[in-house]
Amino acid sequence: MSGFPPSPPQQVNLSNWQQPASLRWSFRHMREVIPTHPIVAGGAVRPLPARERDLGDIPVSLADGPSTVAKVLDTTYTDGLLVLHDGVVVTERYFEGMAPSTRHLVMSVSKSIVGCVAGVLVEGGQLDPGAPVTAYVPEVAGSGYDGARVRDVLDMRTGVAFSEAYTSEDSEVRVMERSMGWAPRRPDDPCGAYAYLTTLRTEGPHGAGFVYRSCDTDMLGWMCERAAGRRMADLVSTHIWQPMGAEFDGDITCDSVGTAVHDGGISTTLRDLARFGQLLLDDGRSGERQVVPAAWLADAYTPTPDVREAFARTDNEPMLPGGWYRDQFWFFHPESGPVLLCLGIHGQLVFVDRGTRTVVVKQSSWPDAQNADHLAATLRACLAIAATLASGRSGRTRARRGARRRR
Amino acid sequence: MSGFPPSPPQQVNLSNWQQPASLRWSFRHMREVIPTHPIVAGGAVRPLPARERDLGDIPVSLADGPSTVAKVLDTTYTDGLLVLHDGVVVTERYFEGMAPSTRHLVMSVSKSIVGCVAGVLVEGGQLDPGAPVTAYVPEVAGSGYDGARVRDVLDMRTGVAFSEAYTSEDSEVRVMERSMGWAPRRPDDPCGAYAYLTTLRTEGPHGAGFVYRSCDTDMLGWMCERAAGRRMADLVSTHIWQPMGAEFDGDITCDSVGTAVHDGGISTTLRDLARFGQLLLDDGRSGERQVVPAAWLADAYTPTPDVREAFARTDNEPMLPGGWYRDQFWFFHPESGPVLLCLGIHGQLVFVDRGTRTVVVKQSSWPDAQNADHLAATLRACLAIAATLASGRSGRTRARRGARRRR
Repeated sequence: MSGFPPSPPQQVNLSNWQQPASLRWSFRHMREVIPTHPIVAGGAVRPLPARERDLGDIPVSLADGPSTVAKVLDTTYTDGLLVLHDGVVVTERYFEGMAPSTRHLVMSVSKSIVGCVAGVLVEGGQLDPGAPVTAYVPEVAGSGYDGARVRDVLDMRTGVAFSEAYTSEDSEVRVMERSMGWAPRRPDDPCGAYAYLTTLRTEGPHGAGFVYRSCDTDMLGWMCERAAGRRMADLVSTHIWQPMGAEFDGDITCDSVGTAVHDGGISTTLRDLARFGQLLLDDGRSGERQVVPAAWLADAYTPTPDVREAFARTDNEPMLPGGWYRDQFWFFHPESGPVLLCLGIHGQLVFVDRGTRTVVVKQSSWPDAQNADHLAATLRACLAIAATLASGRSGRTRARRGARRRR
Repeated sequence: MSGFPPSPPQQVNLSNWQQPASLRWSFRHMREVIPTHPIVAGGAVRPLPARERDLGDIPVSLADGPSTVAKVLDTTYTDGLLVLHDGVVVTERYFEGMAPSTRHLVMSVSKSIVGCVAGVLVEGGQLDPGAPVTAYVPEVAGSGYDGARVRDVLDMRTGVAFSEAYTSEDSEVRVMERSMGWAPRRPDDPCGAYAYLTTLRTEGPHGAGFVYRSCDTDMLGWMCERAAGRRMADLVSTHIWQPMGAEFDGDITCDSVGTAVHDGGISTTLRDLARFGQLLLDDGRSGERQVVPAAWLADAYTPTPDVREAFARTDNEPMLPGGWYRDQFWFFHPESGPVLLCLGIHGQLVFVDRGTRTVVVKQSSWPDAQNADHLAATLRACLAIAATLASGRSGRTRARRGARRRR
């Protein structure tokens, strides 16, 4: 998108912004492609104290051989990386023109933010996980969501038929995208995300298997808005962004009838994404303030057997061994203890390891929506960083020795 | 736009946002309807000291009888009003839910902001008013702009055929709106503002009569972007918004190829609009900083005879007696001395009276795009406010006496 106007091959628009050649630009300029609601910061900013270290040389063992953190960052289209250890910034790096003030689309990391809003509303008695979806949104009576409970939606265990196949133009996720303004709407597409949700059908019972479905988060967002009587951008601002001490406004794309894309529409700076990760590490607290209920996060961290079993049966198990999906968070369980993840396609990540008190946030522009090699390499790099920081073998020491040698 | 989703009659979208029932909402939520470029503030904020007075009782003589400032505000769909006298806020009022942080579309007041960017570029030697348009934008060779000079564009004295008839769906201004993303594009409409400009034709010689044409400002914006190698949102941010001490980011709508709508797409808070007005009052200075070249504004304030004559022949003369149009500013000349105006449809106004050191900014939602009665009443109210402030007959004195009586 350089030139006035950009030459046609360089133009990024509603039809091509998700194509590989456009991603790096479009992820940083969502409000210029799609209408957005602002997520207003505006509260006291939480400081991010820093003691920077060079983590690039940390060895990472990949399936195809030994590597390093620096190499993993280089091969996984990294736009920004921030590592916090014990609440202190260890590394804050920007690539390819990213800057601390750049908002970057976080895709399905948005789901975890919306999930935290739901947690606040549950704590406040406005949303009941045991209630039927139709108690909040009667419009979905008769649709695939009829009979589902809020809990099923939170854990993506509805029986709704929905294909998350990004490579097929006719999969549900692509029709939903067109309905919610992420691509030009075709004449037969529903107008707006909520209109789309009412068209869904079931393919199995509610409350059984875990199937990752973006539509469930949009259903959750709809219930939150109805329960609170406020739109999602304002709920995130009031309940998460301001109390956690966000430094910058975020935003969330909205469709042609003003509905936010709850399942993936949030753009935020790397630093505010790191504050969100630290909030999750600290039992939902930011400073003295309890932002996300501690009990809500504790519940997510301690899955009931059926939550674990629902996950173990899926093809996510090899990538996230011992894992589960709860309250819009992913978990996996390496030897060192449970790790919470927020994940978005094309390489968006929040890695929260309470055992080592490590938070890693990464914004990326993988050309593919999903890429098992990139995700595996990223997770191994995160684990290697966490282990190094926990062991006290800091890159800083190495960097200082190196600096001394160079003098 | 209340409800999740809003009921269809309440929905505001790209097709209906300019209809009377939508205006009050849409003017405050442009980024939620149309993609936007941010105009980043981010510099030191210029304080706005305040000594508030009640100006509502000031008599205003209208064509149909005596009125008051309060009544004029009430009958002209006022969303916000801020009056500065000698740089001090005399009145800052918000209506119908507006707030100090609300960005409100300023429509063609945008033109004057773009004009100031042009002034900065002229001062810096990047843009030459005497140069042909095609020196900066060769793409318009062979179009209506061929042979026009930058000066003709600055003063809207090109010979380009362009109808500003907002009430006709087929007028040039409406086709241009569809091309630049302000309404759904039809199959035959050009894609983007710049593509549209290349389709225009002439109806007369360049450099002759004044005809208010929005397209000329878009042509000016295109030349500015080419001359500076930067897009308009960034030019406004760097050259106007930050140095004048803006408090809030503004934004400007952009079309499907990322071109800003130079002629009317800027949204700003009332307070930053007031800072812009004060800048124009103070010969382009904000504090110690010369933001807009003083010589540029001085030139606009002292029209050559042909500039005045070009205006006197138009039907603008009765509304703006003694007036002229120069460098994207309107002027008129009441007995008290020349008054600079920035005007936007539906009641957007910056009134700058150097004689009384008064700035009045008003954001409104007139149901009609153009309304001579509303504009006449607003201008008379501004003149009455300015005369009262200059005379020292302050509303504050009256308000205090009233307050004492009420005690």
